[in-house]
Amino acid sequence: MVWLTGLSGAGKSTIADALGPTLRARGLAVEVLDGDVVRTHLSKGLGFSREDRDLNVLRIAFVAHLLSRNGVTVVVSAISPYRAAREEARRRIGAFVEVAVAPPLEACIARDPKGLYAKALAGEIPAFTGVSDPYEPPLAPEVHLDTTQIDVQTAVDRIVLALEERGHLGAP
Amino acid sequence: MVWLTGLSGAGKSTIADALGPTLRARGLAVEVLDGDVVRTHLSKGLGFSREDRDLNVLRIAFVAHLLSRNGVTVVVSAISPYRAAREEARRRIGAFVEVAVAPPLEACIARDPKGLYAKALAGEIPAFTGVSDPYEPPLAPEVHLDTTQIDVQTAVDRIVLALEERGHLGAP
Repeated sequence: MVWLTGLSGAGKSTIADALGPTLRARGLAVEVLDGDVVRTHLSKGLGFSREDRDLNVLRIAFVAHLLSRNGVTVVVSAISPYRAAREEARRRIGAFVEVAVAPPLEACIARDPKGLYAKALAGEIPAFTGVSDPYEPPLAPEVHLDTTQIDVQTAVDRIVLALEERGHLGAP
Repeated sequence: MVWLTGLSGAGKSTIADALGPTLRARGLAVEVLDGDVVRTHLSKGLGFSREDRDLNVLRIAFVAHLLSRNGVTVVVSAISPYRAAREEARRRIGAFVEVAVAPPLEACIARDPKGLYAKALAGEIPAFTGVSDPYEPPLAPEVHLDTTQIDVQTAVDRIVLALEERGHLGAP
């Protein structure tokens, strides 16, 4: 179970999409659960209050737990801004590698791949994480990635190394 | 993928709980998804309108699909009253064995294990399937079980036979 948390535009999905094939090449069954996709399928109707964000995270954790106890390695990519909800996910799932995808906020605003920060800063999106809604960074993530300093391949390598060190991967 | 549909009190959960271990004994990885449990974990806040019931069914289908494409046999036990939503689940999942758990309504009312029919008939539960809300029985289920005529073991045997006939199980 790899849980990527970070701001919008931090690079979570890009890393998750590269990590999936890398882990499959190591013989693992892998499912990538993207926060946006999960919102569509499991959390339509939920908003962006703390309660609704936490509910969304716990639904992802429920599905991830069902998969992981059947031998599937789950890669979650979700803003998941609240520490307590991530800790609850960790508690439920067990083998949990938390990855802080943590470029500086300024870098996310500068990249703004979906144009969301521009809208949020203009007040057009309420409760936008990092701008008008809290983000609680992990205090002790298994992996910390500043995606302004490293490329995607290096990020993937760092996560794979963390999995190897914890005995979650066989020999390459 | 085995999908048990039927009225409240029809015997779906009892059959699902007996089917799970039987299939595991045949070497399958099995997850039983109970409609009530799924409502707690994935659909808190959804009500009992047609739209909300269908959303709940599609969420179950989403999770079942993730599991089944990773080699897990999923047994769903859910009222799932609307035919179109069940057909959509079938379309998404592929190998789909629909089981109509279909005692006469009168038998469900007489058994009423949770006391819900008494409340529904007294008008205390609105939109109760079979009393004040529709149930659309399957037109061509792979298995049809009248649980007033057969016991749990026979019901399980009939489902196992249907799985064998479709090549979903190896030799016993």
